[in-house]
Amino acid sequence: MSTDTASLGLARVAERGEGVGLDELALATRNHGMPLEALRYDVTPPGLHYVLTHFDIPAVDPATWRLEIGGAVDRRLALTLDELMSRPAVTTRVLLECAGNGRARYEPRPVSQPWLLEAVGTAEWTGTPLAPLLAEAGISPDAVDVAFTGADHGIERGVEQDYARGLPLAEARRPEALLVWAMNGAALLPQHGAPLRLVVPGWYGMAQVKWLTRIDVLTEPFTGYQNATAYRLKVDADDPGEPVTRIRPRALLAPPGFPDFMTRERFVHAGQVPLTGRAWSGRAPVTRVEVSTDGGESWGDAVLAPADPAHPFAWRAWSYHWTARPGRSELLTRATDGSGETQPVEQQWNRQGMANNLVQRVPVTVLP
Amino acid sequence: MSTDTASLGLARVAERGEGVGLDELALATRNHGMPLEALRYDVTPPGLHYVLTHFDIPAVDPATWRLEIGGAVDRRLALTLDELMSRPAVTTRVLLECAGNGRARYEPRPVSQPWLLEAVGTAEWTGTPLAPLLAEAGISPDAVDVAFTGADHGIERGVEQDYARGLPLAEARRPEALLVWAMNGAALLPQHGAPLRLVVPGWYGMAQVKWLTRIDVLTEPFTGYQNATAYRLKVDADDPGEPVTRIRPRALLAPPGFPDFMTRERFVHAGQVPLTGRAWSGRAPVTRVEVSTDGGESWGDAVLAPADPAHPFAWRAWSYHWTARPGRSELLTRATDGSGETQPVEQQWNRQGMANNLVQRVPVTVLP
Repeated sequence: MSTDTASLGLARVAERGEGVGLDELALATRNHGMPLEALRYDVTPPGLHYVLTHFDIPAVDPATWRLEIGGAVDRRLALTLDELMSRPAVTTRVLLECAGNGRARYEPRPVSQPWLLEAVGTAEWTGTPLAPLLAEAGISPDAVDVAFTGADHGIERGVEQDYARGLPLAEARRPEALLVWAMNGAALLPQHGAPLRLVVPGWYGMAQVKWLTRIDVLTEPFTGYQNATAYRLKVDADDPGEPVTRIRPRALLAPPGFPDFMTRERFVHAGQVPLTGRAWSGRAPVTRVEVSTDGGESWGDAVLAPADPAHPFAWRAWSYHWTARPGRSELLTRATDGSGETQPVEQQWNRQGMANNLVQRVPVTVLP
Repeated sequence: MSTDTASLGLARVAERGEGVGLDELALATRNHGMPLEALRYDVTPPGLHYVLTHFDIPAVDPATWRLEIGGAVDRRLALTLDELMSRPAVTTRVLLECAGNGRARYEPRPVSQPWLLEAVGTAEWTGTPLAPLLAEAGISPDAVDVAFTGADHGIERGVEQDYARGLPLAEARRPEALLVWAMNGAALLPQHGAPLRLVVPGWYGMAQVKWLTRIDVLTEPFTGYQNATAYRLKVDADDPGEPVTRIRPRALLAPPGFPDFMTRERFVHAGQVPLTGRAWSGRAPVTRVEVSTDGGESWGDAVLAPADPAHPFAWRAWSYHWTARPGRSELLTRATDGSGETQPVEQQWNRQGMANNLVQRVPVTVLP
């Protein structure tokens, strides 16, 4: 990486055809994705949900830990975990996805965490709504952003930092924004942010700050590294870029049949092959999922599972009946949401490989 | 991969300097390692323990699932999960490590699951001893091996198979060999082999068959793919190779200080830096851990935590006091076990990148 690129806070872009480096691999082996056969579960079991940690998983002692709420508020607060857990609790089922999902299939490839398509998961999160706590602290009438700081510490492209993200005040005040201490009915696991994390349904993972230590109300937009530099849709180094916010629509197929160990290519037997998967959008409800079994030449509508009003922020199941004939096939699937946004069939490249929702392609060999 | 290589059941070997391919990355993003800061936990939390799945995580319905015991026995058995769980239960703390751990740092690199050093974990496994069940079935006096078959199905180097491994009868009869239904006090997670798996302390992960469906007593050595072809120490394609069996000694350092996001390089502040880690061997108890803070020029003895007779198959904690001076440093650590085996400082290459226990090297920048 050139010093110029580093000083601009930008990932290097790999040469065309350049293999994944040991630096990307070191991220891939410690952060983990959801194997796509786990799309079968309504709620992703512990350890199968994706995890992306910028620095280390910190060792936080819940006995001495405090959450401080400060900045442009009337009353600074410092709360223990017991105090937070004694507040009204809500459990919601929420789909989370990393903003870098799909980056490793970009051509050319931005050099960072090299996700293929597995940086997703849906969990039941239990916590207390953030808005009443902010109200108790007394928000300044000039407030615009709320900054969330975690205990995870490191250096990113030359900037030493505690991981921190700003969120527009209106988002922080949504009733669905929760301070979370439990996942799938059990205490939050270390890698998911124990003892306390933020969950803001609809937003990509970078907003879901883990290992929370501070919440600061701001009267100016937050200009920390992760908002101003890292999570932006840039086309080149000079482009300040639009911020990455809510999750774009995506459908994924649970891989049918069985795999080859090394290539991960799929094999099915000819005949009726039920195809199933999940679809989501953080912007509007999913309204349509389409499937192509001929490499994108033609598309058919999948059957969407009934919308579940109890879980508006979860993924939605879909199914499709495929009559598979012997030979090679390529399966594609794409989602459309209520805002009219549909997944692109051709990549829409950006400099950091973010918010990419290119359609999934699954090559399949149909055996006689 | 050439057809010849495929027909010999061998991984391709990467060219020198060749980056990791999308096939290796697809394995790295779905199998997951233990981030090394998790060496801090005596028992690895759910989701941080390493996982290596050859094919897919199968969907097994515990209600209809049965374990069949057959082959060279007097009485074939078919047991439900309830029947197994009503038998005497034992909980043991066991370190597991993948035989391919460290493969991605080999030069040249065998093309397979590209582990760096994170394919480890220690869990509390609860199950019932295998030996009394085999005795109830009545083992043929001619028996030599016991074959364990899982529900995971796929193709590996041209061979369609259910994952299956043979184990010498004497190992299967060890009192520590368990049929396991719980991990860390909770029901076995899908990716760890639900509803039932084998745990044989001391052996590399390939022997710890998950999603068990069949156990067959054999009067001839098992010749299935995973024993005869996959898990062998070969120097070239013509070498039948020695079988991979028990875990070689290894020590790992919990990374000190804080990381750079992309390079994962470590930064500490000058002064007293406590170094901690774990060490293990599946062959004999760990007797010594050494640390070098000057790239291997000199070594000092780490302090081993007292041996815990309650957990003979767990890893052992160690610590070392480092007075760090500003500049660049390289930390190394190596374990020796009671058989006298010590980790090598230079790689001992084999054709499939297995049972490699080359010492860990951790570059550190010491800040003023």
